[in-house]
Amino acid sequence: MYTLYEFATSGNCYKLRLAMSNLRVDFKRVSIDITKGESHTEEFLKMNPNGNVPVLETPDGKYLPESNAALWYLADGTTLMPESKFEQAQVLQWMFFEQYSHEPFIATSRYWVQILKAEEKYKVQLDEKRPKGYAALDIMEQHLDKQPYFVGSSYSIADIALYAYTHIAHEGGFNLNSYNAINRWIKRIEQTSNYLSITA
Amino acid sequence: MYTLYEFATSGNCYKLRLAMSNLRVDFKRVSIDITKGESHTEEFLKMNPNGNVPVLETPDGKYLPESNAALWYLADGTTLMPESKFEQAQVLQWMFFEQYSHEPFIATSRYWVQILKAEEKYKVQLDEKRPKGYAALDIMEQHLDKQPYFVGSSYSIADIALYAYTHIAHEGGFNLNSYNAINRWIKRIEQTSNYLSITA
Repeated sequence: MYTLYEFATSGNCYKLRLAMSNLRVDFKRVSIDITKGESHTEEFLKMNPNGNVPVLETPDGKYLPESNAALWYLADGTTLMPESKFEQAQVLQWMFFEQYSHEPFIATSRYWVQILKAEEKYKVQLDEKRPKGYAALDIMEQHLDKQPYFVGSSYSIADIALYAYTHIAHEGGFNLNSYNAINRWIKRIEQTSNYLSITA
Repeated sequence: MYTLYEFATSGNCYKLRLAMSNLRVDFKRVSIDITKGESHTEEFLKMNPNGNVPVLETPDGKYLPESNAALWYLADGTTLMPESKFEQAQVLQWMFFEQYSHEPFIATSRYWVQILKAEEKYKVQLDEKRPKGYAALDIMEQHLDKQPYFVGSSYSIADIALYAYTHIAHEGGFNLNSYNAINRWIKRIEQTSNYLSITA
């Protein structure tokens, strides 16, 4: 059985629960409270020297950090991965977009506001992150206005990677009301097989 | 033939030249001057709505943004990609580490200092980026002290992704003198088949 070392409210950790639920993969959950330094203990750093969650432990006891690398490992050869090599590269393209141009603005804002409850303390930083987060949402909106999912015509780990923090972007102060295509895509994902909410 | 839309001194663009040279893949280069807004023209945004380089155009005319997704596309099935699925996931793990925990600090510092020649203007931001960049270098040093390349025992696109900005980190003000394992790894890469320098 897989083991997921996670901070439950982290979108990066939720990605893996959502994928494993869809794929009917059994897993157990081990809580790592990142606000209490539990991802920087000597024991944890042996699993991931970078000191962050999630870490996915495979059934044969190997550790895989980085949410999108673990998503790729779980999805390879399943319905959550397109078959053509070019579309597989496009899945990676959107996952790198997520980690470089989306997560550092949208997820980090939510972490300060919703998890740390420190909106006042981080006001300057939040103001700096706002336009970059909206720029990422604009790119997503433009793309989803043309097609139902990020790559090809079916649900993949590219959607899971981007859904994780987009559907809770409001918790970091982003207003998604005018993003019609994104909102339709969010509803579409919430109707996928074995969907789990982030609080489940 | 492949076409690489690039800003030649960008490490992200250099990654693809280094991989294609190693793999003996023919390509032509098209210069996009990002300091003059050429990655934000209407024409460029059709290739990559995110407005950044590189973009790799495949021989059949499809566009692939995101350096590490393009690296994956080029390397799949070649000597630059390990054969086991778990090691392939580890390659992605290090490539996501590079884009999230390394490039935003080490490459961005170099961009301000070396490309824009604006060290004074960005002094505060450079000071903020310094410890995070060194944290990434420390993780690399610890890992390379145990093995010659990032994944398994052979040269892969994980090495190429991390080499691109590490070997020129000094141009952004990072001192690599005490990083013995990293320096040995840099020399090892510079002896690989058909190696190209970033200025070639």
